Amino acid sequence: MKTLKVIKIGGNIIDNDRVLSMFLKVFTELKGPKILVHGGGKFATRLAEKMNIPISMVEGRRITDAATLEIITMVYAGKINKSIVAQLQKYQCNAIGFTGADGNTIVSHKRIVKTIDYGFVGDIDAVNTTVISALIEAEVTPVFCAITHNEKGQLLNTNADTIASELAIALSNDYNVELYYCFEKKGVLRDVEDDNSVIELIDSEYYEKLKLEHIIYEGMIPKLDNCFHAINANVKKVCIGKVEMLFQQNSRYTTIQK
Amino acid sequence: MKTLKVIKIGGNIIDNDRVLSMFLKVFTELKGPKILVHGGGKFATRLAEKMNIPISMVEGRRITDAATLEIITMVYAGKINKSIVAQLQKYQCNAIGFTGADGNTIVSHKRIVKTIDYGFVGDIDAVNTTVISALIEAEVTPVFCAITHNEKGQLLNTNADTIASELAIALSNDYNVELYYCFEKKGVLRDVEDDNSVIELIDSEYYEKLKLEHIIYEGMIPKLDNCFHAINANVKKVCIGKVEMLFQQNSRYTTIQK
Repeated sequence: MKTLKVIKIGGNIIDNDRVLSMFLKVFTELKGPKILVHGGGKFATRLAEKMNIPISMVEGRRITDAATLEIITMVYAGKINKSIVAQLQKYQCNAIGFTGADGNTIVSHKRIVKTIDYGFVGDIDAVNTTVISALIEAEVTPVFCAITHNEKGQLLNTNADTIASELAIALSNDYNVELYYCFEKKGVLRDVEDDNSVIELIDSEYYEKLKLEHIIYEGMIPKLDNCFHAINANVKKVCIGKVEMLFQQNSRYTTIQK
Repeated sequence: MKTLKVIKIGGNIIDNDRVLSMFLKVFTELKGPKILVHGGGKFATRLAEKMNIPISMVEGRRITDAATLEIITMVYAGKINKSIVAQLQKYQCNAIGFTGADGNTIVSHKRIVKTIDYGFVGDIDAVNTTVISALIEAEVTPVFCAITHNEKGQLLNTNADTIASELAIALSNDYNVELYYCFEKKGVLRDVEDDNSVIELIDSEYYEKLKLEHIIYEGMIPKLDNCFHAINANVKKVCIGKVEMLFQQNSRYTTIQK
Protein backbone atom coordinates (compact mmCIF):
# COMPACT_ATOMS: atom_id res chain seq x y z
CA MET A 1 0.00 0.00 0.00
CA LYS A 2 1.08 3.55 -0.71
CA THR A 3 1.74 6.01 2.09
CA LEU A 4 -0.74 8.88 2.42
CA LYS A 5 -0.11 11.89 4.63
CA VAL A 6 -3.08 13.63 6.29
CA ILE A 7 -1.92 16.97 7.66
CA LYS A 8 -4.00 19.25 9.84
CA ILE A 9 -3.15 22.91 10.36
CA GLY A 10 -4.79 25.31 12.78
CA GLY A 11 -5.19 29.02 13.45
CA ASN A 12 -1.52 29.70 14.24
CA ILE A 13 -0.69 28.96 10.60
CA ILE A 14 -3.89 30.20 8.94
CA ASP A 15 -3.95 33.58 10.69
CA ASN A 16 -0.50 34.60 9.47
CA ASP A 17 -0.23 35.08 5.69
CA ARG A 18 3.56 34.73 5.66
CA VAL A 19 3.56 31.57 7.80
CA LEU A 20 0.70 30.07 5.76
CA SER A 21 2.52 30.74 2.51
CA MET A 22 5.72 29.13 3.88
CA PHE A 23 3.74 26.14 5.11
CA LEU A 24 2.02 25.65 1.75
CA LYS A 25 5.38 25.63 0.00
CA VAL A 26 6.67 22.94 2.38
CA PHE A 27 3.39 21.03 2.00
CA THR A 28 3.71 21.10 -1.80
CA GLU A 29 7.24 19.70 -1.62
CA LEU A 30 6.18 16.67 0.46
CA LYS A 31 6.43 13.63 -1.78
CA GLY A 32 3.50 11.30 -2.37
CA PRO A 33 -0.25 11.53 -1.87
CA LYS A 34 -1.50 13.93 0.79
CA ILE A 35 -4.57 15.63 2.18
CA LEU A 36 -4.71 18.97 3.96
CA VAL A 37 -7.27 19.72 6.67
CA HIS A 38 -7.55 23.27 7.96
CA GLY A 39 -9.32 24.88 10.88
CA GLY A 40 -10.77 28.33 10.94
CA GLY A 41 -8.52 30.86 12.63
CA LYS A 42 -9.62 34.21 13.98
CA PHE A 43 -11.16 35.72 10.86
CA ALA A 44 -14.63 34.25 11.45
CA THR A 45 -14.79 35.94 14.87
CA ARG A 46 -13.60 39.23 13.39
CA LEU A 47 -16.21 39.02 10.62
CA ALA A 48 -18.97 38.29 13.15
CA GLU A 49 -17.89 41.38 15.12
CA LYS A 50 -17.89 43.51 11.98
CA MET A 51 -21.40 42.31 11.19
CA ASN A 52 -22.53 42.86 14.80
CA ILE A 53 -23.44 39.21 15.19
CA PRO A 54 -23.14 38.37 18.88
CA ILE A 55 -21.26 35.23 19.90
CA SER A 56 -23.81 32.75 21.24
CA MET A 57 -22.71 31.22 24.52
CA VAL A 58 -24.51 28.68 26.69
CA GLU A 59 -22.95 27.70 30.02
CA GLY A 60 -19.62 29.09 28.87
CA ARG A 61 -19.63 27.05 25.65
CA ARG A 62 -19.74 28.59 22.22
CA ILE A 63 -22.83 27.76 20.15
CA THR A 64 -23.06 27.56 16.36
CA ASP A 65 -26.35 29.35 15.69
CA ALA A 66 -27.63 29.92 12.13
CA ALA A 67 -25.86 33.27 11.74
CA THR A 68 -22.58 31.80 12.98
CA LEU A 69 -22.89 28.81 10.64
CA GLU A 70 -23.37 31.21 7.72
CA ILE A 71 -20.22 33.09 8.68
CA ILE A 72 -18.25 29.88 9.17
CA THR A 73 -19.37 28.63 5.75
CA MET A 74 -18.29 31.90 4.12
CA VAL A 75 -14.96 32.08 5.92
CA TYR A 76 -13.89 28.42 6.10
CA ALA A 77 -15.23 27.12 2.76
CA GLY A 78 -14.93 30.45 0.94
CA LYS A 79 -12.15 32.77 2.01
CA ILE A 80 -9.68 30.40 3.71
CA ASN A 81 -10.22 27.25 1.65
CA LYS A 82 -10.08 29.00 -1.72
CA SER A 83 -7.10 31.12 -0.75
CA ILE A 84 -5.23 27.93 0.21
CA VAL A 85 -6.27 26.17 -3.01
CA ALA A 86 -5.20 29.12 -5.17
CA GLN A 87 -1.83 29.31 -3.41
CA LEU A 88 -1.25 25.57 -3.75
CA GLN A 89 -1.96 25.89 -7.47
CA LYS A 90 0.71 28.60 -7.61
CA TYR A 91 3.18 26.03 -6.27
CA GLN A 92 1.90 23.48 -8.85
CA CYS A 93 0.11 21.39 -6.27
CA ASN A 94 -3.20 20.49 -7.94
CA ALA A 95 -5.59 21.03 -5.02
CA ILE A 96 -9.38 20.83 -4.77
CA GLY A 97 -11.24 22.34 -1.84
CA PHE A 98 -13.81 20.27 0.04
CA THR A 99 -16.44 20.49 2.68
CA GLY A 100 -17.90 17.16 3.75
CA ALA A 101 -20.88 17.96 1.51
CA ASP A 102 -18.71 17.99 -1.61
CA GLY A 103 -18.70 14.50 -3.08
CA ASN A 104 -20.72 13.47 0.00
CA THR A 105 -17.33 12.83 1.58
CA ILE A 106 -18.13 13.40 5.27
CA VAL A 107 -21.57 12.69 6.66
CA SER A 108 -22.49 13.81 10.16
CA HIS A 109 -25.53 14.35 12.36
CA LYS A 110 -26.39 17.43 14.37
CA ARG A 111 -24.97 16.86 17.83
CA ILE A 112 -27.62 15.35 20.08
CA VAL A 113 -28.69 17.69 22.87
CA LYS A 114 -27.84 16.37 26.30
CA THR A 115 -27.31 19.34 28.59
CA ILE A 116 -26.21 21.88 25.98
CA ASP A 117 -27.60 22.50 22.48
CA TYR A 118 -24.45 23.29 20.52
CA GLY A 119 -26.51 24.31 17.50
CA PHE A 120 -25.30 23.47 14.00
CA VAL A 121 -22.43 21.26 15.09
CA GLY A 122 -21.95 17.91 13.38
CA ASP A 123 -20.61 14.66 14.82
CA ILE A 124 -19.24 12.45 12.07
CA ASP A 125 -21.07 9.25 11.08
CA ALA A 126 -19.25 8.22 7.92
CA VAL A 127 -16.46 9.12 5.52
CA ASN A 128 -17.01 8.14 1.89
CA THR A 129 -13.59 7.63 0.36
CA THR A 130 -14.50 6.80 -3.26
CA VAL A 131 -14.17 10.31 -4.67
CA ILE A 132 -11.23 11.16 -2.40
CA SER A 133 -9.25 8.06 -3.41
CA ALA A 134 -10.01 8.59 -7.10
CA LEU A 135 -8.71 12.16 -6.90
CA ILE A 136 -5.62 11.12 -4.94
CA GLU A 137 -4.86 8.51 -7.60
CA ALA A 138 -5.19 11.28 -10.20
CA GLU A 139 -2.54 13.22 -8.21
CA VAL A 140 -5.04 15.74 -6.93
CA THR A 141 -4.69 17.00 -3.35
CA PRO A 142 -7.95 17.37 -1.40
CA VAL A 143 -8.09 20.34 0.99
CA PHE A 144 -10.78 19.97 3.65
CA CYS A 145 -12.29 22.72 5.76
CA ALA A 146 -14.09 22.08 9.05
CA ILE A 147 -17.60 21.69 7.64
CA THR A 148 -19.62 18.51 7.12
CA HIS A 149 -23.25 17.82 6.15
CA ASN A 150 -26.10 15.57 7.21
CA GLU A 151 -27.26 14.40 3.73
CA LYS A 152 -30.49 16.31 4.36
CA GLY A 153 -29.29 19.65 3.07
CA GLN A 154 -27.81 20.91 6.34
CA LEU A 155 -24.17 21.99 6.60
CA LEU A 156 -22.66 21.44 10.05
CA ASN A 157 -19.63 22.91 11.82
CA THR A 158 -17.25 20.08 12.74
CA ASN A 159 -13.98 20.05 14.66
CA ALA A 160 -11.05 20.05 12.22
CA ASP A 161 -8.95 17.67 14.39
CA THR A 162 -11.79 15.15 14.23
CA ILE A 163 -12.17 15.57 10.46
CA ALA A 164 -8.45 14.83 10.11
CA SER A 165 -8.58 11.70 12.27
CA GLU A 166 -11.77 10.35 10.64
CA LEU A 167 -10.33 10.91 7.15
CA ALA A 168 -7.12 9.18 8.23
CA ILE A 169 -9.02 6.20 9.65
CA ALA A 170 -11.31 5.79 6.64
CA LEU A 171 -8.42 5.99 4.19
CA SER A 172 -6.41 3.40 6.14
CA ASN A 173 -8.26 0.70 4.20
CA ASP A 174 -6.43 1.78 1.06
CA TYR A 175 -3.27 3.50 2.25
CA ASN A 176 -0.64 3.45 4.98
CA VAL A 177 -1.84 6.68 6.53
CA GLU A 178 0.32 9.07 8.51
CA LEU A 179 -1.56 11.73 10.46
CA TYR A 180 0.17 14.98 11.44
CA TYR A 181 -1.33 17.63 13.71
CA CYS A 182 0.62 20.85 13.22
CA PHE A 183 0.16 23.41 15.97
CA GLU A 184 2.04 26.21 17.71
CA LYS A 185 4.05 24.02 20.08
CA LYS A 186 6.81 21.50 19.46
CA GLY A 187 4.56 18.72 20.71
CA VAL A 188 2.92 17.60 23.94
CA LEU A 189 4.90 19.40 26.64
CA ARG A 190 5.72 18.18 30.13
CA ASP A 191 5.88 21.85 31.18
CA VAL A 192 3.59 24.06 29.10
CA GLU A 193 5.97 27.01 29.68
CA ASP A 194 9.00 25.14 28.35
CA ASP A 195 8.97 24.42 24.62
CA ASN A 196 11.91 22.07 25.08
CA SER A 197 10.02 19.74 27.40
CA VAL A 198 8.55 17.78 24.49
CA ILE A 199 7.34 14.29 25.36
CA GLU A 200 8.53 12.37 22.32
CA LEU A 201 6.47 9.22 22.73
CA ILE A 202 3.08 8.66 24.36
CA ASP A 203 1.26 5.33 24.47
CA SER A 204 -2.20 4.74 25.97
CA GLU A 205 -0.87 3.74 29.36
CA TYR A 206 1.41 6.77 29.61
CA TYR A 207 -1.45 8.97 28.38
CA GLU A 208 -3.61 7.89 31.32
CA LYS A 209 -0.74 8.64 33.69
CA LEU A 210 -0.13 12.09 32.13
CA LYS A 211 -3.81 12.93 32.53
CA LEU A 212 -3.86 11.79 36.15
CA GLU A 213 -0.77 13.92 36.83
CA HIS A 214 -2.53 16.86 35.17
CA ILE A 215 0.35 17.24 32.72
CA ILE A 216 -2.16 16.79 29.91
CA TYR A 217 -5.35 18.76 30.47
CA GLU A 218 -8.07 20.94 28.92
CA GLY A 219 -7.85 21.40 25.14
CA MET A 220 -5.05 18.84 24.77
CA ILE A 221 -7.36 16.03 25.90
CA PRO A 222 -9.76 16.08 22.91
CA LYS A 223 -6.73 16.53 20.62
CA LEU A 224 -5.00 13.48 22.05
CA ASP A 225 -8.24 11.50 22.16
CA ASN A 226 -8.41 12.08 18.40
CA CYS A 227 -4.83 10.86 18.06
CA PHE A 228 -5.47 7.66 20.03
CA HIS A 229 -8.73 7.10 18.19
CA ALA A 230 -6.72 7.14 14.94
CA ILE A 231 -3.74 5.04 16.06
CA ASN A 232 -6.10 2.44 17.52
CA ALA A 233 -7.96 2.25 14.22
CA ASN A 234 -5.22 1.29 11.81
CA VAL A 235 -3.61 4.67 11.15
CA LYS A 236 0.10 3.86 10.89
CA LYS A 237 1.64 6.97 12.42
CA VAL A 238 0.22 9.88 14.43
CA CYS A 239 2.36 12.90 15.31
CA ILE A 240 1.81 16.28 16.96
CA GLY A 241 4.16 19.22 16.71
CA LYS A 242 5.33 22.22 14.73
CA VAL A 243 5.32 22.12 10.94
CA GLU A 244 9.06 21.42 11.09
CA MET A 245 8.33 17.78 12.02
CA LEU A 246 7.18 17.27 8.46
CA PHE A 247 10.53 18.00 6.85
CA GLN A 248 13.33 18.66 9.36
CA GLN A 249 15.35 15.55 10.08
CA ASN A 250 16.20 16.24 13.68
CA SER A 251 13.17 18.17 14.88
CA ARG A 252 11.52 16.99 18.09
CA TYR A 253 7.81 16.26 18.21
CA THR A 254 5.36 13.91 19.88
CA THR A 255 4.54 10.53 18.38
CA ILE A 256 1.46 8.67 19.56
CA GLN A 257 1.64 4.90 19.91
CA LYS A 258 -0.94 2.26 20.81
CA MET B 1 -20.33 10.77 -27.60
CA LYS B 2 -22.50 11.23 -24.55
CA THR B 3 -24.65 14.30 -24.09
CA LEU B 4 -23.59 16.69 -21.32
CA LYS B 5 -25.80 19.52 -20.10
CA VAL B 6 -24.17 22.74 -18.85
CA ILE B 7 -26.78 24.80 -17.04
CA LYS B 8 -26.27 28.34 -15.81
CA ILE B 9 -28.54 29.95 -13.23
CA GLY B 10 -28.53 33.56 -12.12
CA GLY B 11 -29.69 35.77 -9.30
CA ASN B 12 -33.43 35.33 -9.95
CA ILE B 13 -33.09 31.69 -8.89
CA ILE B 14 -30.32 32.04 -6.30
CA ASP B 15 -31.94 34.90 -4.38
CA ASN B 16 -35.15 33.01 -3.68
CA ASP B 17 -34.75 29.97 -1.40
CA ARG B 18 -38.01 28.37 -2.54
CA VAL B 19 -37.27 28.84 -6.25
CA LEU B 20 -33.68 27.60 -5.80
CA SER B 21 -34.85 24.50 -3.99
CA MET B 22 -37.41 23.76 -6.74
CA PHE B 23 -34.77 24.30 -9.40
CA LEU B 24 -32.28 21.98 -7.70
CA LYS B 25 -34.90 19.24 -7.56
CA VAL B 26 -35.56 19.61 -11.29
CA PHE B 27 -31.83 19.76 -11.96
CA THR B 28 -31.29 16.51 -10.03
CA GLU B 29 -33.96 14.75 -12.07
CA LEU B 30 -32.32 15.64 -15.39
CA LYS B 31 -30.89 12.45 -16.84
CA GLY B 32 -27.25 12.11 -17.81
CA PRO B 33 -24.07 14.04 -17.04
CA LYS B 34 -24.47 17.69 -16.12
CA ILE B 35 -22.67 20.72 -14.75
CA LEU B 36 -24.21 23.62 -12.86
CA VAL B 37 -22.81 27.15 -13.07
CA HIS B 38 -24.19 29.76 -10.74
CA GLY B 39 -23.88 33.52 -10.51
CA GLY B 40 -23.86 35.54 -7.34
CA GLY B 41 -27.24 37.11 -6.60
CA LYS B 42 -27.81 40.02 -4.29
CA PHE B 43 -26.32 38.66 -1.08
CA ALA B 44 -22.78 39.87 -1.83
CA THR B 45 -24.03 43.44 -2.17
CA ARG B 46 -26.03 43.14 1.07
CA LEU B 47 -22.99 41.75 2.89
CA ALA B 48 -20.80 44.59 1.60
CA GLU B 49 -23.39 47.07 2.89
CA LYS B 50 -23.48 45.37 6.30
CA MET B 51 -19.70 45.55 6.48
CA ASN B 52 -19.71 49.19 5.33
CA ILE B 53 -17.60 48.36 2.31
CA PRO B 54 -18.38 50.95 -0.34
CA ILE B 55 -19.10 49.80 -3.89
CA SER B 56 -16.16 50.87 -6.05
CA MET B 57 -17.29 52.54 -9.25
CA VAL B 58 -15.19 53.99 -12.07
CA GLU B 59 -16.96 55.75 -14.95
CA GLY B 60 -20.22 54.11 -13.93
CA ARG B 61 -18.72 50.60 -13.99
CA ARG B 62 -18.43 48.42 -10.91
CA ILE B 63 -14.89 47.53 -9.85
CA THR B 64 -13.75 44.40 -8.01
CA ASP B 65 -11.34 45.81 -5.45
CA ALA B 66 -9.60 43.58 -2.87
CA ALA B 67 -12.38 43.96 -0.28
CA THR B 68 -15.05 43.15 -2.88
CA LEU B 69 -13.12 40.09 -4.08
CA GLU B 70 -12.94 38.83 -0.49
CA ILE B 71 -16.71 39.22 -0.14
CA ILE B 72 -17.35 37.55 -3.48
CA THR B 73 -15.11 34.63 -2.50
CA MET B 74 -16.95 34.21 0.79
CA VAL B 75 -20.42 34.51 -0.73
CA TYR B 76 -20.03 32.76 -4.09
CA ALA B 77 -17.58 29.96 -3.16
CA GLY B 78 -18.71 29.70 0.47
CA LYS B 79 -22.33 30.49 1.22
CA ILE B 80 -24.02 29.98 -2.16
CA ASN B 81 -21.89 27.18 -3.60
CA LYS B 82 -21.91 25.06 -0.44
CA SER B 83 -25.61 25.61 0.14
CA ILE B 84 -26.29 24.38 -3.40
CA VAL B 85 -23.97 21.38 -2.99
CA ALA B 86 -25.58 20.39 0.34
CA GLN B 87 -29.07 20.67 -1.16
CA LEU B 88 -28.10 18.61 -4.21
CA GLN B 89 -26.74 15.93 -1.88
CA LYS B 90 -30.13 15.91 -0.16
CA TYR B 91 -31.67 15.04 -3.53
CA GLN B 92 -28.99 12.35 -4.03
CA CYS B 93 -27.16 14.31 -6.69
CA ASN B 94 -23.48 13.80 -5.84
CA ALA B 95 -22.18 17.35 -6.36
CA ILE B 96 -18.77 18.91 -5.81
CA GLY B 97 -18.33 22.68 -5.64
CA PHE B 98 -15.66 24.36 -7.75
CA THR B 99 -13.97 27.64 -8.33
CA GLY B 100 -11.63 27.71 -11.31
CA ALA B 101 -8.75 27.32 -8.83
CA ASP B 102 -10.02 23.90 -7.69
CA GLY B 103 -8.38 21.26 -9.84
CA ASN B 104 -6.85 24.15 -11.82
CA THR B 105 -10.01 23.93 -13.91
CA ILE B 106 -10.33 27.52 -15.16
CA VAL B 107 -7.28 29.68 -15.70
CA SER B 108 -7.68 33.39 -16.36
CA HIS B 109 -5.65 36.58 -16.36
CA LYS B 110 -6.47 39.84 -14.64
CA ARG B 111 -8.32 41.94 -17.21
CA ILE B 112 -5.89 44.19 -19.03
CA VAL B 113 -6.43 47.86 -18.29
CA LYS B 114 -7.47 49.84 -21.34
CA THR B 115 -9.58 52.77 -20.17
CA ILE B 116 -10.93 51.23 -16.97
CA ASP B 117 -9.14 49.11 -14.35
CA TYR B 118 -11.82 46.61 -13.38
CA GLY B 119 -9.67 45.30 -10.52
CA PHE B 120 -9.66 41.60 -9.71
CA VAL B 121 -11.66 40.52 -12.74
CA GLY B 122 -10.45 37.55 -14.74
CA ASP B 123 -10.72 36.90 -18.47
CA ILE B 124 -10.50 33.18 -19.20
CA ASP B 125 -7.42 31.75 -20.95
CA ALA B 126 -7.96 28.00 -20.56
CA VAL B 127 -10.28 25.34 -19.22
CA ASN B 128 -8.59 22.12 -18.05
CA THR B 129 -11.13 19.36 -18.44
CA THR B 130 -9.18 16.35 -17.08
CA VAL B 131 -10.50 16.50 -13.51
CA ILE B 132 -13.97 17.61 -14.63
CA SER B 133 -14.34 14.76 -17.12
CA ALA B 134 -13.04 12.20 -14.62
CA LEU B 135 -15.60 13.34 -12.05
CA ILE B 136 -18.42 13.36 -14.60
CA GLU B 137 -17.52 9.79 -15.58
CA ALA B 138 -17.70 8.90 -11.87
CA GLU B 139 -21.26 10.35 -11.89
CA VAL B 140 -20.24 13.39 -9.88
CA THR B 141 -21.84 16.74 -10.75
CA PRO B 142 -19.49 19.75 -10.70
CA VAL B 143 -21.03 23.01 -9.45
CA PHE B 144 -19.07 26.08 -10.53
CA CYS B 145 -19.23 29.53 -8.99
CA ALA B 146 -18.10 32.67 -10.80
CA ILE B 147 -14.48 32.68 -9.62
CA THR B 148 -11.35 31.71 -11.55
CA HIS B 149 -7.62 32.00 -10.82
CA ASN B 150 -4.43 33.05 -12.59
CA GLU B 151 -2.19 30.11 -11.51
CA LYS B 152 -0.13 32.64 -9.53
CA GLY B 153 -2.20 32.49 -6.38
CA GLN B 154 -4.74 35.16 -7.33
CA LEU B 155 -8.47 34.44 -7.39
CA LEU B 156 -10.38 36.49 -9.94
CA ASN B 157 -14.05 37.41 -10.32
CA THR B 158 -15.33 36.11 -13.66
CA ASN B 159 -18.67 36.45 -15.39
CA ALA B 160 -20.76 33.31 -14.80
CA ASP B 161 -22.23 33.35 -18.34
CA THR B 162 -18.70 33.25 -19.71
CA ILE B 163 -17.67 30.45 -17.35
CA ALA B 164 -20.66 28.44 -18.62
CA SER B 165 -19.83 29.00 -22.29
CA GLU B 166 -16.11 28.31 -21.87
CA LEU B 167 -16.82 25.10 -19.93
CA ALA B 168 -19.29 24.07 -22.63
CA ILE B 169 -16.77 24.74 -25.41
CA ALA B 170 -13.87 22.95 -23.69
CA LEU B 171 -16.00 19.89 -22.91
CA SER B 172 -17.26 19.68 -26.52
CA ASN B 173 -14.15 17.67 -27.35
CA ASP B 174 -15.49 14.81 -25.25
CA TYR B 175 -19.25 15.32 -25.14
CA ASN B 176 -22.20 16.55 -27.15
CA VAL B 177 -22.69 19.62 -25.01
CA GLU B 178 -25.99 21.41 -24.53
CA LEU B 179 -25.75 24.83 -22.90
CA TYR B 180 -28.75 26.32 -21.11
CA TYR B 181 -28.91 29.85 -19.73
CA CYS B 182 -31.77 30.04 -17.23
CA PHE B 183 -32.96 33.53 -16.42
CA GLU B 184 -36.09 35.44 -15.41
CA LYS B 185 -37.60 35.72 -18.90
CA LYS B 186 -38.98 33.10 -21.26
CA GLY B 187 -36.19 33.85 -23.72
CA VAL B 188 -35.04 36.70 -25.93
CA LEU B 189 -38.10 38.90 -26.27
CA ARG B 190 -39.18 40.98 -29.27
CA ASP B 191 -40.94 43.30 -26.81
CA VAL B 192 -39.27 43.37 -23.38
CA GLU B 193 -42.66 44.15 -21.77
CA ASP B 194 -44.34 41.11 -23.29
CA ASP B 195 -43.20 37.74 -21.98
CA ASN B 196 -45.06 36.05 -24.81
CA SER B 197 -43.00 37.73 -27.52
CA VAL B 198 -40.26 35.07 -27.32
CA ILE B 199 -38.06 34.82 -30.40
CA GLU B 200 -37.70 31.07 -30.70
CA LEU B 201 -34.76 30.91 -33.07
CA ILE B 202 -31.87 33.31 -33.61
CA ASP B 203 -28.99 32.76 -36.01
CA SER B 204 -26.01 35.08 -36.50
CA GLU B 205 -27.58 36.94 -39.39
CA TYR B 206 -30.85 37.52 -37.50
CA TYR B 207 -28.84 38.51 -34.40
CA GLU B 208 -27.15 41.32 -36.33
CA LYS B 209 -30.55 42.49 -37.57
CA LEU B 210 -32.06 42.40 -34.06
CA LYS B 211 -29.17 44.48 -32.73
CA LEU B 212 -29.52 47.02 -35.53
CA GLU B 213 -33.25 47.27 -34.81
CA HIS B 214 -32.39 47.77 -31.11
CA ILE B 215 -34.60 44.79 -30.17
CA ILE B 216 -31.52 43.25 -28.56
CA TYR B 217 -29.52 45.75 -26.50
CA GLU B 218 -27.57 46.40 -23.32
CA GLY B 219 -27.07 43.36 -21.04
CA MET B 220 -28.54 40.94 -23.59
CA ILE B 221 -25.65 41.60 -25.98
CA PRO B 222 -22.84 40.07 -23.87
CA LYS B 223 -25.21 37.19 -22.98
CA LEU B 224 -25.92 36.47 -26.64
CA ASP B 225 -22.29 36.99 -27.61
CA ASN B 226 -21.50 34.17 -25.16
CA CYS B 227 -24.18 32.03 -26.80
CA PHE B 228 -22.85 32.58 -30.31
CA HIS B 229 -19.27 32.08 -29.11
CA ALA B 230 -20.37 28.63 -27.85
CA ILE B 231 -22.50 27.57 -30.84
CA ASN B 232 -19.71 28.61 -33.22
CA ALA B 233 -17.22 26.51 -31.27
CA ASN B 234 -18.79 23.08 -31.45
CA VAL B 235 -21.37 23.29 -28.65
CA LYS B 236 -24.33 21.34 -30.01
CA LYS B 237 -27.25 23.29 -28.57
CA VAL B 238 -27.53 26.69 -26.88
CA CYS B 239 -30.80 27.85 -25.31
CA ILE B 240 -31.95 30.80 -23.21
CA GLY B 241 -35.13 30.92 -21.17
CA LYS B 242 -36.87 30.06 -17.95
CA VAL B 243 -35.97 26.88 -16.07
CA GLU B 244 -39.09 25.28 -17.57
CA MET B 245 -37.26 24.86 -20.90
CA LEU B 246 -35.24 22.12 -19.23
CA PHE B 247 -38.15 19.83 -18.54
CA GLN B 248 -41.48 21.11 -19.89
CA GLN B 249 -42.29 19.64 -23.28
CA ASN B 250 -44.11 22.60 -24.76
CA SER B 251 -42.40 25.52 -23.09
CA ARG B 252 -41.20 28.32 -25.34
CA TYR B 253 -37.62 29.53 -25.19
CA THR B 254 -34.91 30.89 -27.46
CA THR B 255 -32.55 28.58 -29.32
CA ILE B 256 -29.33 29.96 -30.78
CA GLN B 257 -28.13 28.64 -34.12
CA LYS B 258 -25.01 29.29 -36.19
